[in-house]
Amino acid sequence: MRPDPSPYPERVRRLRVGLSETGVLLILNAINIRYLTGFTGGDGALMAGPTWLVLLVDGRYVTQARGEAAGTEIFEFRNRVDGIAAVAHQQGIGQIDFESPALSVEEYLKLQEGLPGVELRPLTSVFHCLRAVKDEAEIARIREAAKIAGEALAAVREMIRPGVREAEIALELEYRMRLGGAEKVSFETIVAAGSNTALPHATPGRRAIADGDCVMIDYGAVCGGYHSDETCTYIVGQASERQQEVYRLVREAHDRALGAIRSGVSCGEIDRIARACLEDAGLGGYFSHGTGHGVGLDVHEAPRLAAGREEILRVGMVVTVEPGIYLPGVWGIRIEDTVLVTEEGCEILTQTPKKLTII
Amino acid sequence: MRPDPSPYPERVRRLRVGLSETGVLLILNAINIRYLTGFTGGDGALMAGPTWLVLLVDGRYVTQARGEAAGTEIFEFRNRVDGIAAVAHQQGIGQIDFESPALSVEEYLKLQEGLPGVELRPLTSVFHCLRAVKDEAEIARIREAAKIAGEALAAVREMIRPGVREAEIALELEYRMRLGGAEKVSFETIVAAGSNTALPHATPGRRAIADGDCVMIDYGAVCGGYHSDETCTYIVGQASERQQEVYRLVREAHDRALGAIRSGVSCGEIDRIARACLEDAGLGGYFSHGTGHGVGLDVHEAPRLAAGREEILRVGMVVTVEPGIYLPGVWGIRIEDTVLVTEEGCEILTQTPKKLTII
Repeated sequence: MRPDPSPYPERVRRLRVGLSETGVLLILNAINIRYLTGFTGGDGALMAGPTWLVLLVDGRYVTQARGEAAGTEIFEFRNRVDGIAAVAHQQGIGQIDFESPALSVEEYLKLQEGLPGVELRPLTSVFHCLRAVKDEAEIARIREAAKIAGEALAAVREMIRPGVREAEIALELEYRMRLGGAEKVSFETIVAAGSNTALPHATPGRRAIADGDCVMIDYGAVCGGYHSDETCTYIVGQASERQQEVYRLVREAHDRALGAIRSGVSCGEIDRIARACLEDAGLGGYFSHGTGHGVGLDVHEAPRLAAGREEILRVGMVVTVEPGIYLPGVWGIRIEDTVLVTEEGCEILTQTPKKLTII
Repeated sequence: MRPDPSPYPERVRRLRVGLSETGVLLILNAINIRYLTGFTGGDGALMAGPTWLVLLVDGRYVTQARGEAAGTEIFEFRNRVDGIAAVAHQQGIGQIDFESPALSVEEYLKLQEGLPGVELRPLTSVFHCLRAVKDEAEIARIREAAKIAGEALAAVREMIRPGVREAEIALELEYRMRLGGAEKVSFETIVAAGSNTALPHATPGRRAIADGDCVMIDYGAVCGGYHSDETCTYIVGQASERQQEVYRLVREAHDRALGAIRSGVSCGEIDRIARACLEDAGLGGYFSHGTGHGVGLDVHEAPRLAAGREEILRVGMVVTVEPGIYLPGVWGIRIEDTVLVTEEGCEILTQTPKKLTII
């Protein structure tokens, strides 16, 4: 599942578009470094000059970096700031445009001290959308991750019954994803029952499922570094009228948002459509997060589908749509799919049907 | 396993020692926020004035924060920078000492813009050692994590035989830790065989164990937020003379370092002792990382046991000792325990014996 080496030079070239031709870029986010070089280790730095590219890693990662980032020069450091300073001196660099979301103020101050006479300029925007549009190989990996995840959920669905604890289902689901070929899980699986579903980010615990509970499962698998993300909410035993009504509304918000997704529409517009649906029913105040987010090498990445976001959806972007209603202390319902943006609409990559399912 | 609320006021008080009495602290690292309030969610901020404490969280975490950080005022934000600005205005704050390792330059620039007239001062040192000395309840959790982990490893040891793949063992080990009561695993379990053991941070893959392989397992469990960390290296079938020799040397470095640990010794001295052992055998160049690190709410935290580190070990610190030799392309051996620093020495919290084991 290691990515073909060919995409990397083009990705570095794309990163440099619109930047000064002589400028030096300093990339610090481990996922961006992976995207640009293939190196999957943590804690490195990537410096990109007009005609050169140096990957800086510490001693633990040198052998791995030489194997994974075969086309890139490798520089070994003891600490990252000293390594960057050493390469900057080697190359006679006068200014560096650095990845400001990935450099802490602490490291920045040390870098300033270690690089007297070098101008450090914060760069933000070029990194935010760098990975947003996926190529075929990336989409194939997300599709595969969603397939493995969906099959694992189908296999554990029979566990969802009164008396079974949240944590037992979470563990079994994660185990099945890994057995099915996931290299890891996208994030700590959420399995929440009853009033715990009112917490959008609940941690699975010892609570046992009871009759009439909502059971919310938010989960995903990782394949070749790429994530899937899906949420299913089931109702156990018998659904109350209120549960059915809220499910129908959240489902409608989800479906309308999906129906509006296509290349050229703004992210904020998709959020507005989902939100309006719930606001019209007087439940807007219980939808306490954005409608969705990009998914790729990170489970949360650009673009964000949230109020006022002006980014435009493009063919090849992969985003979640995940409206939810959370009634504090009572229960919550969220419905989430991961979809691929196409010219005319979208393709749903996650596999579980989202109709109301009473178990 | 939720921590008793009582430690939090004392921890906040301790954080403030040596700082201006009127100063306002801005804490941004999620683990520090947990340590100071009990709130286990991500993506928040904590502001501490002389007589007040406000935990800022986004909508997803409000209910959870009210439950977990019962003694703390909760402020809901849409984005973190705006939330901090709002609280600063509310409280009429003129200057903020912020956690500089946990604030990105991007957010810092936004904060500057959102807080005209407020002086932002980077703070580093008070945060580095904040969590280093553990109390009884914290040590009990690390002990419990190490016990669960050790029992899981004992249960999967029979899987270590020719033909079994690295990833199969990693998955089974993680599954057993979770079944045994771990809320999660400390980090992605490393199971490396043969030449993969020459990579200190290998990712378990499809490689099958072969006769004569070194098999390195670096793993840990989490209990009540607290981590364990241990590495065992086994040899399968028959050990070559070189493997036995290197194992003996690494074991000696490990034992000598453990023998030197006690309250009052510097971290750099422990590293020097382990390193000297390997250098004297002409293998110093193959020990490509530090000797150890603190373990607690994070798997890597202060203090670091590395060359030149002047921090002094104190009673109640919990640190790893993990010398290793990595022969590129050939194999590697690492031996790691997690230990509690005591007045006169140390207590080993990890449970697996470290004698040479040929399976």
